[in-house]
Amino acid sequence: MVKKPSSFPFARKTSDSVAALGEEKLIVAIRRWLGDASPRAPFGIGDDCAVLPAARGPQLITVDPVIYGRHFDASIPPRAVGAKLLKRNLSDLAAMGGSPTAAVLALTLDPRTSLVWLEAFYRGLAACARRYKTPIVGGDIAQADGVLAASLTLLGSATGPRVLTRTGARCGDTLYVTGTLGRSLRSGHHFKFLPRLAEGAWLARQPGVRAMMDVSDGLAKDLHALTPSDAAPALDADTLPLRRGADLRGALTDGEDYELLFALAARADANAFAADWRSAFPRTRLTRIGYFAHRDALPQSSLRLDAFSGYEHLR
Amino acid sequence: MVKKPSSFPFARKTSDSVAALGEEKLIVAIRRWLGDASPRAPFGIGDDCAVLPAARGPQLITVDPVIYGRHFDASIPPRAVGAKLLKRNLSDLAAMGGSPTAAVLALTLDPRTSLVWLEAFYRGLAACARRYKTPIVGGDIAQADGVLAASLTLLGSATGPRVLTRTGARCGDTLYVTGTLGRSLRSGHHFKFLPRLAEGAWLARQPGVRAMMDVSDGLAKDLHALTPSDAAPALDADTLPLRRGADLRGALTDGEDYELLFALAARADANAFAADWRSAFPRTRLTRIGYFAHRDALPQSSLRLDAFSGYEHLR
Repeated sequence: MVKKPSSFPFARKTSDSVAALGEEKLIVAIRRWLGDASPRAPFGIGDDCAVLPAARGPQLITVDPVIYGRHFDASIPPRAVGAKLLKRNLSDLAAMGGSPTAAVLALTLDPRTSLVWLEAFYRGLAACARRYKTPIVGGDIAQADGVLAASLTLLGSATGPRVLTRTGARCGDTLYVTGTLGRSLRSGHHFKFLPRLAEGAWLARQPGVRAMMDVSDGLAKDLHALTPSDAAPALDADTLPLRRGADLRGALTDGEDYELLFALAARADANAFAADWRSAFPRTRLTRIGYFAHRDALPQSSLRLDAFSGYEHLR
Repeated sequence: MVKKPSSFPFARKTSDSVAALGEEKLIVAIRRWLGDASPRAPFGIGDDCAVLPAARGPQLITVDPVIYGRHFDASIPPRAVGAKLLKRNLSDLAAMGGSPTAAVLALTLDPRTSLVWLEAFYRGLAACARRYKTPIVGGDIAQADGVLAASLTLLGSATGPRVLTRTGARCGDTLYVTGTLGRSLRSGHHFKFLPRLAEGAWLARQPGVRAMMDVSDGLAKDLHALTPSDAAPALDADTLPLRRGADLRGALTDGEDYELLFALAARADANAFAADWRSAFPRTRLTRIGYFAHRDALPQSSLRLDAFSGYEHLR
């Protein structure tokens, strides 16, 4: 693949870098790039704080970054990097059945960062913000040599009477996952994915769904957070929905799947649930991958998850 | 001054670094260090999002980072770095007359970051969060070589019926600044300051106060944002409140003052206002530093601000 020049984030000439523009003009440019994705001050960028409307119900808040060399590199189009930053956070909101209300962005830039790259990053972010009706209401720009990173804080609200958390699953509950798992980096899924907002909101309205999270660090690692203390996940290796080209290990440990994982109460009618799902989301695959067994009654045939570990952020 | 070893943020031995602990144990440690400054999930760290209570009135949101080599170095105690991160954001909230409700933290760590340093950073942040009743409800940890940075997003609410913005000043309005200006880095003010929350809330309740901001990049640069388009600030060099050891240039350009700058309507009773201030804040200095003249009627004796520029974030 021939690398597109605009995907390389650092300018070869100073005149093409953010340093050449300076801070004040850069902020003007950023507001132009964001366009109507960023409201006017005091409801957007340009004052000490942004003013947000009152929130009637419970609110949700989450924060996730994209960092050069970690979450993207020069092979990823900058528009896709900007979109990924918002979508990662939207996936966290989806996992609780929420919908977005506003976002703020903290950018850390090497002074050599290319203006062409940065414009595409912001335009990609803005397009995604418009698509998901998430105004970018504030931000900060700081300089640090050798760093290109953006951290986005996303605010949201519950879409119904219930917020779905990671706790609440019980022994006997059935485990489901949306979409497919594994090979996210190789396949480009890690920046092409669509956050499961509609699915998450729907699932939060189903009384049988007891707990939910998004799979971002690999199923083997993330599943711990959903598992009740007296239980162990009994997974059937043959049922795991593998992304094209992915193997079992990849499906369990690659990370960046951005799919929803949830527990359905044992007493729920699984067939009716599956039929309702197909009717609501005919194009989103849903797979029953196992159940929560009692800790001391794990079937011999279950996957031994201890042999797999998910993505480690610090090593 | 002998540098305290714990102020140097990188461990000499791997066993003393965050890499030795690994991500999961680090998150457990961080929750211990934060203690009761961080509520339990889903109202705090530990789920895909944190759940926040409904907000009755308008909300405020702001984001600011601290970056190693930029906002702090090895001469600053890590507890003070943690506190500074929150206080910088509280100062932005103060500038609109708001009070804090919750914060989330995005941390970017070099794997060599010292555990001793990081614990002190979090304990300093937690102490400050308790002092200002600002629960730390969420966060993210990412790894990047050569980086030690933390970005905090702060949510707040208005303390009264009015949020004070940067716009609203008019020709003839008097300009005031709290405290003293200049020499913030040399004097340690940049991490010892106290955010002017009580003063900001009080000022937002005074009908004569038309516009306000905090001075963080130097008065010469920040004042532009408060200046109406048909006006120019007429400042008297002799009245500027200099921090001990600061000169005029420093007071105008050093930055990191974290003081409040505001415009009082010309029709307001300045003497009554000053008396009310002294009664409310006997220990906080308030200085009338000039007024907004008509653009084409700037007195000859005014400070020529064009000769000074404030802190540039990108150069």
